[in-house]
Amino acid sequence: MAGNISELIIETVNFKDNVDHLFLIIMGMCIVFMQCGFAFLEAGAVRSKNTTNILIKNVMDLFISGVSYWLFGFAFAFGDGVADKFIGLKYFASSDVPHSKYALFFFQFTFAATASTIVSGAVAERCEFVAYFVYSVFITGFIYPVVTHWAWSSGGWLTIGDTYSGLNNESVAYQDFAGSGVVHVLGGIAALVGAVMLGPRIGRFHRSSKTVAPIRGHSVPIAALGGFILFFGFLAFNGGSQLSISNPGDGAAVSIAVVNTVISGSCAAVMSLILNRLHIFGNTWSLLITINGALTGMVAICAGCNVYEPYASCVIGLISAIVYRTYSVILLKIGVDDPLDAVAVHFGGGSWGVIAVAFFDNSNGIFYARDLKSAYKLGWQFIGLFAIAGWTLVLSGIVFGIMKALGFLRVSREEEEKGLDIPKHNEPAYPVEAYGHGHIERLIQILENNPTVVTQGFTNVAYEKEITDKGQYENPETQNVLRNGSSEKVVPSREVHLKTPANGVRVTAPHSEVRVTVNDTKL
Amino acid sequence: MAGNISELIIETVNFKDNVDHLFLIIMGMCIVFMQCGFAFLEAGAVRSKNTTNILIKNVMDLFISGVSYWLFGFAFAFGDGVADKFIGLKYFASSDVPHSKYALFFFQFTFAATASTIVSGAVAERCEFVAYFVYSVFITGFIYPVVTHWAWSSGGWLTIGDTYSGLNNESVAYQDFAGSGVVHVLGGIAALVGAVMLGPRIGRFHRSSKTVAPIRGHSVPIAALGGFILFFGFLAFNGGSQLSISNPGDGAAVSIAVVNTVISGSCAAVMSLILNRLHIFGNTWSLLITINGALTGMVAICAGCNVYEPYASCVIGLISAIVYRTYSVILLKIGVDDPLDAVAVHFGGGSWGVIAVAFFDNSNGIFYARDLKSAYKLGWQFIGLFAIAGWTLVLSGIVFGIMKALGFLRVSREEEEKGLDIPKHNEPAYPVEAYGHGHIERLIQILENNPTVVTQGFTNVAYEKEITDKGQYENPETQNVLRNGSSEKVVPSREVHLKTPANGVRVTAPHSEVRVTVNDTKL
Amino acid sequence: MAGNISELIIETVNFKDNVDHLFLIIMGMCIVFMQCGFAFLEAGAVRSKNTTNILIKNVMDLFISGVSYWLFGFAFAFGDGVADKFIGLKYFASSDVPHSKYALFFFQFTFAATASTIVSGAVAERCEFVAYFVYSVFITGFIYPVVTHWAWSSGGWLTIGDTYSGLNNESVAYQDFAGSGVVHVLGGIAALVGAVMLGPRIGRFHRSSKTVAPIRGHSVPIAALGGFILFFGFLAFNGGSQLSISNPGDGAAVSIAVVNTVISGSCAAVMSLILNRLHIFGNTWSLLITINGALTGMVAICAGCNVYEPYASCVIGLISAIVYRTYSVILLKIGVDDPLDAVAVHFGGGSWGVIAVAFFDNSNGIFYARDLKSAYKLGWQFIGLFAIAGWTLVLSGIVFGIMKALGFLRVSREEEEKGLDIPKHNEPAYPVEAYGHGHIERLIQILENNPTVVTQGFTNVAYEKEITDKGQYENPETQNVLRNGSSEKVVPSREVHLKTPANGVRVTAPHSEVRVTVNDTKL
Repeated sequence: MAGNISELIIETVNFKDNVDHLFLIIMGMCIVFMQCGFAFLEAGAVRSKNTTNILIKNVMDLFISGVSYWLFGFAFAFGDGVADKFIGLKYFASSDVPHSKYALFFFQFTFAATASTIVSGAVAERCEFVAYFVYSVFITGFIYPVVTHWAWSSGGWLTIGDTYSGLNNESVAYQDFAGSGVVHVLGGIAALVGAVMLGPRIGRFHRSSKTVAPIRGHSVPIAALGGFILFFGFLAFNGGSQLSISNPGDGAAVSIAVVNTVISGSCAAVMSLILNRLHIFGNTWSLLITINGALTGMVAICAGCNVYEPYASCVIGLISAIVYRTYSVILLKIGVDDPLDAVAVHFGGGSWGVIAVAFFDNSNGIFYARDLKSAYKLGWQFIGLFAIAGWTLVLSGIVFGIMKALGFLRVSREEEEKGLDIPKHNEPAYPVEAYGHGHIERLIQILENNPTVVTQGFTNVAYEKEITDKGQYENPETQNVLRNGSSEKVVPSREVHLKTPANGVRVTAPHSEVRVTVNDTKL
Repeated sequence: MAGNISELIIETVNFKDNVDHLFLIIMGMCIVFMQCGFAFLEAGAVRSKNTTNILIKNVMDLFISGVSYWLFGFAFAFGDGVADKFIGLKYFASSDVPHSKYALFFFQFTFAATASTIVSGAVAERCEFVAYFVYSVFITGFIYPVVTHWAWSSGGWLTIGDTYSGLNNESVAYQDFAGSGVVHVLGGIAALVGAVMLGPRIGRFHRSSKTVAPIRGHSVPIAALGGFILFFGFLAFNGGSQLSISNPGDGAAVSIAVVNTVISGSCAAVMSLILNRLHIFGNTWSLLITINGALTGMVAICAGCNVYEPYASCVIGLISAIVYRTYSVILLKIGVDDPLDAVAVHFGGGSWGVIAVAFFDNSNGIFYARDLKSAYKLGWQFIGLFAIAGWTLVLSGIVFGIMKALGFLRVSREEEEKGLDIPKHNEPAYPVEAYGHGHIERLIQILENNPTVVTQGFTNVAYEKEITDKGQYENPETQNVLRNGSSEKVVPSREVHLKTPANGVRVTAPHSEVRVTVNDTKL
Repeated sequence: MAGNISELIIETVNFKDNVDHLFLIIMGMCIVFMQCGFAFLEAGAVRSKNTTNILIKNVMDLFISGVSYWLFGFAFAFGDGVADKFIGLKYFASSDVPHSKYALFFFQFTFAATASTIVSGAVAERCEFVAYFVYSVFITGFIYPVVTHWAWSSGGWLTIGDTYSGLNNESVAYQDFAGSGVVHVLGGIAALVGAVMLGPRIGRFHRSSKTVAPIRGHSVPIAALGGFILFFGFLAFNGGSQLSISNPGDGAAVSIAVVNTVISGSCAAVMSLILNRLHIFGNTWSLLITINGALTGMVAICAGCNVYEPYASCVIGLISAIVYRTYSVILLKIGVDDPLDAVAVHFGGGSWGVIAVAFFDNSNGIFYARDLKSAYKLGWQFIGLFAIAGWTLVLSGIVFGIMKALGFLRVSREEEEKGLDIPKHNEPAYPVEAYGHGHIERLIQILENNPTVVTQGFTNVAYEKEITDKGQYENPETQNVLRNGSSEKVVPSREVHLKTPANGVRVTAPHSEVRVTVNDTKL
């Protein structure tokens, strides 16, 4: 322990540094958990046949970012060696990154993963897995990091802004505390490009009648779980953007950011709920719209959650709800199919947030300062918004466009109709055969007086492919006749026999191993 | 950086202040996540037809609290300007709240949301959505904040207590570290009032035979998820109640609170498990009862988790399990239908906890001090318990009573039987049409050789109501005939035709868009 | 506040101590949440009929550890009074534990719970509940604590290592930062012993044809939820192992540990995904294998996540994916049925991690130091690996062996076939009767024109067993005839009548209360 004041000062500096690391690590961990939130919000909003697909995309978002942001992303974003206004070029594969920057690396990585995951909702249920893989690498490895360099690295052109003689050479720059623009406008635009390039899901729009068929997600609880996790994570997302906790005022700034996030989200949620009840946008108390509304409020508050008075957060939240629903309706009207409303939530909320900060910032905002500088500020917010949106539009347009031209952007019609889980992943989300003695079996037992034939494929255990297709055996548990081989290999004559009953009742499941067939003679 | 000792002292003070903020923010975030825990514990315990309803109530708990506690609650609780023993009257809408208090505001808000959410379990499956909305505003905006002013603000009458000449003018006051009384007795009593005022769910009690029909929840995993999240959150709930981490002893106090929470919860869980196995209260290893038992132990330990020896926590936990089951049985016997056992867990555990602290406090408790003061202490614990319970009983009685008198407390019989999700929210938790190529479709394929008619309603896209009802079209995905309009608009003659088969098999779903009908001629 | 430097020094020491407590508490809380992760990873991987069973085992893991580690475990692990190299013998039931050690106690307890929960996956779907109870007590109360004493307490023989004259009397010891060996090899070996002793699930292996029947888990989303929570928790597991945050370098060490965990997990996930696609181990994009692969990478990195360069973490992660799949295949080939691949993930990843640290440690590893000492180091890693594996093999072999000899290790064949949820717990995970107006009811309504007879059992409310079996009444909600008593007590004549239709369709559910029967006359 220190014995004199200089030692004590050094010790205090070290200690403060450590606590700042702790702050970034904890907040970053909570943001990592937001991946789980996005995954479940999206999984609940797709049909059961695409559930595994959307989950693996969200899992891989995290891990692709882990590789891609480590190899390239952090370097483009914060590799400030060349002090370039446009891009960083140091720290590839974290080489030469000092240990003191690892916490920052981790925190920024969690943001990159978030930017990427926004897209997966908009392209759900029809995007090829490989295409998804490619765009994730580009977003987390290049598109997003460059924008963070612009807006969040000390040398970026949006951070520096410009000086104006009309303002006595004061400088004005782009302001975006937690990423309304950097993360959400970027993610929302990429989502929009993806959704447009892919086209709508089969059956979503009926062009001649100009009607929209609702395609419900398969599980409200799963979507709600995602929503709750995102509410939790957003507090860290916005609070953590202070980046340090040891400097005077940090604690208050983090607290204000968190409180404003709560208030904006709350007001947006209540407004969304009411808007959808009062025959303005609907006529029911909708949970899913309330969740998305709350998220829009939390997205919109990002840009200035550290500089708003709570009443301003309330106003921003209330308007967010209107913005969200308006964008959602517009997208439907122009025929863009965005299963998760990712564009409305993230681009809608984010673009509103970038503008709102020019008005509501409690020191420099137009409503407070009422001076020329605040007007210039608004200009810079627009510059930032257009720069980010344009950059993302062009880059993601190129990425998605090339994949579309090469023909591997969208799954085949057959796979889309069947759902992606079984053809792509061979992992149905809820395999019927796993529900023995559960609720499904009750219904299968409608048929219980009849012989049940179960055709079951065997796992091709690696290195031993020859062990499959060894003939029939009786599964001692199901007490049913198992016929070896996959369902495609079933002896056709038997099949035909099973299909011919005059009043036979038959459950058939061509994509999985269980095949329950009722013999007509018993009915 | 500081160059001399006075600067260093200031810097250290600032730093400590920041870390205290961080502590409150992180603990508060974990408590926010408890909302997710309550939501899922409750969602798993209701029938699938009321799942969306219970989830939206829990989502709105958070956001209604966000608005209500911001506008009124914090002022009534901690607006100490007038230094009133009964109520605070400053800081409405957070006006004039210094930035240094925002972390405290956030932390206290998370507690208010918790107090409110306890009620939603007890009134599940039958409470009107608007009624729920109203009582949430009252609980988080007035009933709960006033009690926190009494017991947790420096000027509250339960905090001050009284001085007694028999104790050499020493003062004795109410002690409730993390809210066994303030949060859980309050929430439990409000839950009791709600459950009694609403009456039991249809079919729950058979009065003449004096039997109770079990109404199972629809998903054990969903309930278990809620339980796990609550176990996690309770550690922050109890540990965070220290409110600071920078003062000498804070770290140890937080640690002790957390460890005691673990031990009490563990002992209560084991005791609940065993009690339910040994033919005392049941004869199976029940998961749901174990979860509720553990929660009761964690509720009971709140009041003194910072001043117990671990063995005392063990004893308190063991007794909690008995308290929980006893209250649960009593409520059933007196005909109160509390779907979540919220009264038994929160009022039972909370009231036991308020009393327990008078005995087990390791410095002032009766078992340690064995003096007159500790007996007075017990008296004050009863005063606090009765004051909180009485206040809540009267206030929530008035709120629920008025709503009952006005006739919007309980949903109609028809809606209750159908479930609330579709009539109120138009969001069935598990929409059957979303399970294409999932497990449900397998069973629908029983009917596959027959023409399937699907009637599908279209979304009324806002601003363009005229686009609906444009005539039939074929959904290219389902390859079935879609007839335009909602199911109510189906041409009756066709309907009748479909209903007449002698041996026809028919799936009908009046509340959603899918209508699968089998033509008799094929069977 | 301090007025002079000595007071300030004391204050700073206290403050640092408090923040260290906070660090341990927060990290420990996140590790507690990993119990939820394991629970859901496992629940998704079993069939629906065993879901409640696996969930209660995971819930009880936490609470059994809470009791057992408090009573015995911490004493054996860190009760250093006698300074024994093999075992600690102080602090039973936390007696005499100073308050300053409670945070450490909590943190270490969360690790013990993790070690125990690994086993539950490997013995899933067939282990007796009581047997599970017994081994959990032994693992968390004795087997695991002794190993932590060896490797993590200051006096343990693996911590001390040995000095060698060939190294100028430098000492070499076993290195295991976050428990690749201490936690995961131990848990993996215990899992292996459990799986071998129990034998495979009925129907898993067909001996004569040498084929393996896949037994799918019932819910991919539930498993994925578990995976996401574990990814989150692992960051705390590895980062928290630094045990303090206030000393110089702590912040960087924690950050490095977290970053290495991300990179190793990411690389392992990507490698697993690709390996399974490229016809090496499979030919699909498998979510479940990717999750397990990522976990293996995070397990393997534990031992040295504080001393690796990121590129080394990448290499370790890539190899982890291969290790995982190889162990998984080997276990199948030798006929061990491990439903969760717990052995492959935890023993495979853990043993690879223990060895890897001897090579990749960026100061003492063979690839860096290239000296004799680093070779000795490798030796000590093997010593530690074999000691931990051997100890666990013998001890858990004795525990499982005795239970097997006494005949209460494995459930009866009948219970295994029916599933454990109803016979053991009377809590089906998805009770069919709870899906009124949900998706199941739609299908039940196939039968809607026919009288439906529901037989419902009543809860035996404690203390009032005589109220049951009071005769029939009509459940006002279902509008169906309810006949009192459990399904076993149904009047046989009625039953027979219902079973006789020539073409009757019948749903029967012998293990629950709902019995839907169709009268033949209507078809």
